[in-house]
Amino acid sequence: MENMRLESYDEVAEILRNCDNVTILTHKSPDGDCIGAGMGLCLYLRSVGKHANVVNSDGFPDRYDFLIGDYQPEEFKEQFVISVDISDTTLLGDELECYKDKIDLCIDHHGSNRFFARKTYVDPSASAACLIIFELLEHMGAEITLPMATNLYTGLATDTGCFKFQNTTPEAHIAAAKMFEMGVDFEHINRRMFDIKSRSRILAEQRLIGDMRYFEDGQIGFLTVTNQNIADFQIDRSELDAFAQIPLTVEGVRFGYTLKQQEDKPQLFKVSLRTTDADAAAICGEFGGGGHLRAAGCTIEGKPREVMAKLLETTRKYL
Amino acid sequence: MENMRLESYDEVAEILRNCDNVTILTHKSPDGDCIGAGMGLCLYLRSVGKHANVVNSDGFPDRYDFLIGDYQPEEFKEQFVISVDISDTTLLGDELECYKDKIDLCIDHHGSNRFFARKTYVDPSASAACLIIFELLEHMGAEITLPMATNLYTGLATDTGCFKFQNTTPEAHIAAAKMFEMGVDFEHINRRMFDIKSRSRILAEQRLIGDMRYFEDGQIGFLTVTNQNIADFQIDRSELDAFAQIPLTVEGVRFGYTLKQQEDKPQLFKVSLRTTDADAAAICGEFGGGGHLRAAGCTIEGKPREVMAKLLETTRKYL
Repeated sequence: MENMRLESYDEVAEILRNCDNVTILTHKSPDGDCIGAGMGLCLYLRSVGKHANVVNSDGFPDRYDFLIGDYQPEEFKEQFVISVDISDTTLLGDELECYKDKIDLCIDHHGSNRFFARKTYVDPSASAACLIIFELLEHMGAEITLPMATNLYTGLATDTGCFKFQNTTPEAHIAAAKMFEMGVDFEHINRRMFDIKSRSRILAEQRLIGDMRYFEDGQIGFLTVTNQNIADFQIDRSELDAFAQIPLTVEGVRFGYTLKQQEDKPQLFKVSLRTTDADAAAICGEFGGGGHLRAAGCTIEGKPREVMAKLLETTRKYL
Repeated sequence: MENMRLESYDEVAEILRNCDNVTILTHKSPDGDCIGAGMGLCLYLRSVGKHANVVNSDGFPDRYDFLIGDYQPEEFKEQFVISVDISDTTLLGDELECYKDKIDLCIDHHGSNRFFARKTYVDPSASAACLIIFELLEHMGAEITLPMATNLYTGLATDTGCFKFQNTTPEAHIAAAKMFEMGVDFEHINRRMFDIKSRSRILAEQRLIGDMRYFEDGQIGFLTVTNQNIADFQIDRSELDAFAQIPLTVEGVRFGYTLKQQEDKPQLFKVSLRTTDADAAAICGEFGGGGHLRAAGCTIEGKPREVMAKLLETTRKYL
């Protein structure tokens, strides 16, 4: 049977109403959007008497404890598998790789989605996977509880950089307004997600920013985080995602790269690219990666200066 | 005649419809909210064929050029004076002090407003003065142009920390959604207002954060900016407002103080306080200042360590 693209919330709602014993997959190196979307959906399914769990390959980082709350995995015989915020099965990670041909429903907001699931609902115009889940639950007339709304707001805030990034839409603001009415403690969430840093992390950022490399009159900026840096500064790896935003905060930088050495494969660097006006997904696509228009990623082998040289050569075509 | 409190947008609208040749006052050390509200209102008044200007004591900092656009002051015989985002005549500054008993209409969102104008519309629940102006124009059925919306969005984003701070309301999000529909280039504005920093400013922040002082197990944090720092790091004084947010980003800090030495009166420090849960306005009120629940300010005389000692003594009562 060919994989199918769903075109409306009605179709997704119909599937959700009829499924049970659901495993919800979130991507490796989980972030606020996949955790929020997964937990939000799981809490909803449980609230209507179904069994559901949320899983991922890397476990939930401590900083998301406030989303996990008293969630406990349930025991049941799995009948249905949903992935959220996953554009490609390579993002399942080692633990969930076994699911790659077994995904019944994929709910995603990446334009680069590869339609690996039996049925896929993808809306690249949605600011976050959490926004799709929120609108879907509203469409279904679901009773959205405060813990559901807290999860969904967190993902929406995460993926929009708290309503700052280009992917923020009127719909994102309207959803946030409704979540506020539901009592979401947005101040606490935003402080936790965006503002608060340990003194050691502040020190680490200072040093890494100080060591940034610039090219093409400062239009291209590279911030590099090696395993040695992580050890020296005692950086929690789950905090590294936030570093990707740093290079673009430097005046004049249009292509902001962050190179993160992989813990298990030190010859590999995970590259994050943020752009002001260029197509980040296209650039990362040249290295087998992908993502969004202004935020994308890929993986490149080599020493930092070799990785930088490869990226520079390609980036110059987009100047 | 006693000063009067206006209770509804209808009453304010009636006044705006009947006034002409208007001078709009904004506060000294102008920020995004007072400039946005002043310019937004001025552009509206001009759009309906009235004469209006926006003034303040310190001029408009360069970083707000994108709001000022091709605005030019008009020549007219002033007949009506409106203040926006001003809670007290002490905030008029030297150049505008002459207006302190001549303000016909005050539009403000500070709970500490002192009702110095003939007529005052104050809504402390409004996230920003710009939100009041926006809702007022909507209420009047005004045609809100893109330049008006750009000004009003900028102030709304400024005062809510881009929808992060405790004062953000559902109404703020709903207004933002409408401004997006009007075509406001929010990504550009937010990058400009919140993200982009010169390399010298990044260096300055690094050094100042490194020199922060902490008390009471790190619950109280002080960041001090002296005139010497400003000279050494070539900091633009108009950028200093943003420094007030820094101390609260350090994990564990509940009372985040920023002390800024005054350029003309080096024996005086302008104090900004941001709190996570304590009443900032009450603390600053003890030193003759004021503001909002989580963001307030005052001025204290002394050397940095003397100013810190005074603030510490008072803050300990609020721990």
